Amino acid sequence: MAAIENLCVIGVGLIGGSLARALREAGYCSRITGSGRDEKNLRRAVELGVIDDYRLSAGEAVRHADMVVVAVPLGAIRGVFEAVAGELKPGAILTDVGSAKGSVVADACAVFGAMPPTLVPGHPIAGTERSGVEASFSTLYRQRRIILTPVASTSEQATAAVRAMWQAAGAEVETMTVEHHDMVLAATSHLPHMLAYVLVDALSRLKDKDEIFRYAAGGFRDFTRIASSDPTMWRDICVANKEAIVDMIQSFREDLDELSHAIEQADAAHVFDIFSRAKAARDRYADGVWAPDLPGGEN
Amino acid sequence: MAAIENLCVIGVGLIGGSLARALREAGYCSRITGSGRDEKNLRRAVELGVIDDYRLSAGEAVRHADMVVVAVPLGAIRGVFEAVAGELKPGAILTDVGSAKGSVVADACAVFGAMPPTLVPGHPIAGTERSGVEASFSTLYRQRRIILTPVASTSEQATAAVRAMWQAAGAEVETMTVEHHDMVLAATSHLPHMLAYVLVDALSRLKDKDEIFRYAAGGFRDFTRIASSDPTMWRDICVANKEAIVDMIQSFREDLDELSHAIEQADAAHVFDIFSRAKAARDRYADGVWAPDLPGGEN
Repeated sequence: MAAIENLCVIGVGLIGGSLARALREAGYCSRITGSGRDEKNLRRAVELGVIDDYRLSAGEAVRHADMVVVAVPLGAIRGVFEAVAGELKPGAILTDVGSAKGSVVADACAVFGAMPPTLVPGHPIAGTERSGVEASFSTLYRQRRIILTPVASTSEQATAAVRAMWQAAGAEVETMTVEHHDMVLAATSHLPHMLAYVLVDALSRLKDKDEIFRYAAGGFRDFTRIASSDPTMWRDICVANKEAIVDMIQSFREDLDELSHAIEQADAAHVFDIFSRAKAARDRYADGVWAPDLPGGEN
Repeated sequence: MAAIENLCVIGVGLIGGSLARALREAGYCSRITGSGRDEKNLRRAVELGVIDDYRLSAGEAVRHADMVVVAVPLGAIRGVFEAVAGELKPGAILTDVGSAKGSVVADACAVFGAMPPTLVPGHPIAGTERSGVEASFSTLYRQRRIILTPVASTSEQATAAVRAMWQAAGAEVETMTVEHHDMVLAATSHLPHMLAYVLVDALSRLKDKDEIFRYAAGGFRDFTRIASSDPTMWRDICVANKEAIVDMIQSFREDLDELSHAIEQADAAHVFDIFSRAKAARDRYADGVWAPDLPGGEN
């Protein structure tokens, strides 16, 4: 018998679809029901064999589920919680894939009155720039990190079940507090996206923008690649993790001011120190922690 | 007969060595003399056939030259001008490859008393993260842009000769004013480097830096790749182009403050507008101006 009898995936896109494919390949679940707002995408998911069937109503979709994965954008999570509240089987485990976790806990408390012991907030550090079920593939999570952020009232059994599910998809699972997750992600993912978006937007508003972009070389292209990310998803992340993001921007501004002041004063030694420390840090992580440099991956 | 009888390359590294290789392959010069501070590198350049001979003294190296290319770091250009002043043949043409041009003009005026009509400031928008003559290759400049910034007193014949030389190396040559060059490069290259250096340095000083870098995904790696650039070269660029860089940082800060304020106010529509404009601009240039996406390339 498979580890999960009935799996329900709400939001069968790149993230939800890839998890469904991986678990099916691993023989980890017997039946997968999908749900979502785009019926065409759901029909395609059935054709592709990613899910067995679907219900447009999330409440109907979860009724027989033992495990429910909410893989919708952050801004849509509260609506899904509202739709499934009172419809879940007793003991059914619920998890999500949102890029910020404090907002998910707040949404859950608002809808359920408190964090349900069976809700395990989660975040796979994986993705590509594509979206939709057509873009999903079963190996997306191999060797990728999944962060789970159980709270004090979360059932250990529920956390263990969600951990085992992601491990079956090939991922490495770690746990941390909600606050720590939101700070780490603000630093390594949310802040860089803000900087890239602001830079590209600023240049695109200059009057000689065509010429400016014409001279942009390879470094600029790498640096700004993340500014091609989905604006809706990133708007939701900003709303969901606004305190940590605003703190990180503030701290970054102070460091940028320090560099700007050193340049203005022609304090070459200070400028050199900042650049040297940064190069040493990046080279160290590029050679060590990040090797092998896996393709793709952002969220 | 070759277009250039005697070429002199001062600084036979990636940039100078690659130009020498390209011109030799094109049969564009008869003899190439190198100069530089690192004799081991110069000997290796002779062994590799990149140059025919070398002189450690730049003054001696240029005596028979018809064309002199100064391919040393920005901070060393004034010293080279001092070394070659009074040693150049009448009519010999002089050009450089510095990433900022206002400082080169200032250095020339300080050393020669005024801009020599035969000095054509130049900047190849090309490079790799490697350095030294071993890293040089003859195709580095193919389809790459070279910006020349002649001033009012620059001889048209000299500009034409430098243009033809770079074209012989496969490059596309354009001209613009010194001030415009320094602004365009501050926007597309210098500012992004500052942002990447400051971000990586800031994260590397956090107490849980190991954990933070561990969760850095693909987007972060692309974004911070330029923070692995040579700190000495970038210190020199900051000193040389400090006004334009400080202006760009200031302008960027104002835009970042605007985004931060919008996030703080949970003004989702404003945040979405900034992200959407940036994505549209980047996608447009990635599909159009930048295609085909050439490998490498930064300076």
